[in-house]
Amino acid sequence: MQGSSRNRQIVLRSRPAGLPTSGHFGLVESPIPEPGDGEVLMRTLWLSLDPYMRGRMSEARSYSAPVPIGGVMVGATLGRVVASRDPAFAVGDVVLGYGGWQDYAVAPGRRLRKLDPALAPITTALSVLGMPGMTGYVGLLEIGRPRAGETVVVSAASGAVGSVVGQIAKIKGCRAVGVAGGAEKCAYVVDVLGLDACVDHRSPGFAEALARACPSGVDVYFENVGGAVQEAVWPLLNDFARVPVCGLIAQYNDTTPRPGPGLSSVLTKRLTVRGFIVSDHAAAQDAFLREVSAWVRDGRIKFREDIVEGLERAPDAFLGLLQGRNFGKLMVRVAS
Amino acid sequence: MQGSSRNRQIVLRSRPAGLPTSGHFGLVESPIPEPGDGEVLMRTLWLSLDPYMRGRMSEARSYSAPVPIGGVMVGATLGRVVASRDPAFAVGDVVLGYGGWQDYAVAPGRRLRKLDPALAPITTALSVLGMPGMTGYVGLLEIGRPRAGETVVVSAASGAVGSVVGQIAKIKGCRAVGVAGGAEKCAYVVDVLGLDACVDHRSPGFAEALARACPSGVDVYFENVGGAVQEAVWPLLNDFARVPVCGLIAQYNDTTPRPGPGLSSVLTKRLTVRGFIVSDHAAAQDAFLREVSAWVRDGRIKFREDIVEGLERAPDAFLGLLQGRNFGKLMVRVAS
Repeated sequence: MQGSSRNRQIVLRSRPAGLPTSGHFGLVESPIPEPGDGEVLMRTLWLSLDPYMRGRMSEARSYSAPVPIGGVMVGATLGRVVASRDPAFAVGDVVLGYGGWQDYAVAPGRRLRKLDPALAPITTALSVLGMPGMTGYVGLLEIGRPRAGETVVVSAASGAVGSVVGQIAKIKGCRAVGVAGGAEKCAYVVDVLGLDACVDHRSPGFAEALARACPSGVDVYFENVGGAVQEAVWPLLNDFARVPVCGLIAQYNDTTPRPGPGLSSVLTKRLTVRGFIVSDHAAAQDAFLREVSAWVRDGRIKFREDIVEGLERAPDAFLGLLQGRNFGKLMVRVAS
Repeated sequence: MQGSSRNRQIVLRSRPAGLPTSGHFGLVESPIPEPGDGEVLMRTLWLSLDPYMRGRMSEARSYSAPVPIGGVMVGATLGRVVASRDPAFAVGDVVLGYGGWQDYAVAPGRRLRKLDPALAPITTALSVLGMPGMTGYVGLLEIGRPRAGETVVVSAASGAVGSVVGQIAKIKGCRAVGVAGGAEKCAYVVDVLGLDACVDHRSPGFAEALARACPSGVDVYFENVGGAVQEAVWPLLNDFARVPVCGLIAQYNDTTPRPGPGLSSVLTKRLTVRGFIVSDHAAAQDAFLREVSAWVRDGRIKFREDIVEGLERAPDAFLGLLQGRNFGKLMVRVAS
């Protein structure tokens, strides 16, 4: 055992209506748990913070059960094995799992994946080679189905998912147009990620600028945000456009249901609007790892991590994520 | 030549805002046209009336150009060849074409299809074996992709498209639930077409009755109408449900854009919402004719035609269609 001798945990104290505040979270301490048969005890090294967590704070029907009041916030983690009752894992192994917002977590070995730190920086298992990267990969390729020469628009283009979408769109020979919040992110999307254009959704005249950036209309809109960005993209969609709906972060704090785009556009333009969750596409995992690892190695896919130090800062960092204050894949270094 | 010696034409007099009235149409007479080289002159026997025609009356962007003011209303027709300058057609042939709302029309032979009246009643080329039947066939099978045991809901279930959808859903082993307007249509859908249930969207408690008719939720919603029916179906959709958007007749007369269902349902339930136009699926034509002809012959697909006598009654019949007053595939007998 190492680190503190108690297990710090960040729990959901109450359910937010609208934008959460730090008061919706609580920090508690509990004994470090013991692994049962077939289980592993992990010391959390890295905690991933992702927009989907907002959904788990609410009771509204979704694709996963909500975190109970008083329960530890869920989340993907990288951990070091500190005790193991699963012969497949040894003390010292680095594993990917869903440890949640806490210093220590116990999980069945079958729910963990051992990482080889020699192969790639381990944090990539939470970012470009992890769930966010695979989300972009399957959403764009399996649902968006971009063809060379088409125009792909991706919102939250500098983010963990969006940056992968935009760069794969370029690899596939598309015109790739990003939408991001602020000049700095937009510059990064064009100058570093290599997209053809990026439009700042906070600037006045956003809709007009987006239209200018898409002179041939939009064939794929990879939807990460919803709200005003969705409304600006919609009139630009071409006939037969595809809209993978991956996230709606601009709407997650809405307190009343927000209507969607009219079905008459879906009909007359023969749009395909399709929601997806990466876990429904597990069959693509091998292809994803093979292709995207190679693109990362070749420098064709770049990624950026936004690192926050200390578990206790996770709530504020998460609140910043909901407001677009992060820049790159947000993760918390819990221990080194 | 036979029939009148002048060509009666129903033209679009002005563009409606909201529900059209008979005043938006005009009856004019013009000389019977002469076929040019490669063309055929048809005497209209039957005119098909279909909901899509409402869209052609408007200037709003759609998948086809609007009818110009003063222009003859468009529409599919069955005609008898009365003069031919295309060697593929002889006087007396019965042909399917897009002659429009008029007694006579000239068209290039390559735009016509010769029918064999011995094979099936010719009006089926406008109904169950024509565009409406194929619309139901491709929309259900290529977009809805129903699997045995799933629940399929179809709106306008007694109509030209919906009746084919519901019956194919039954053939595919699904629970098929119709939505129709009025007790008589609902009884027909269950007793004659053989669907498992049909709910009257005009009855109080419609949404609750629909929910009761779909105890396992809804896996495919074949959308013909939009509006209140769509709103009642949406909460019943299961994860991974498919929504082929074929028509929105309840919204065609809206004067302000109507928002659609929220994208958050699309995301959390991983819905596929896809608009389509039958002409985009021409590759399915042979399979459609082969399969549906056989089902009609075997009595597994029944159809109903609602026949109006006389070209001059086409406008009123069409206005009734927009309000659900027809019962079965609406067509006008222009000449016998």
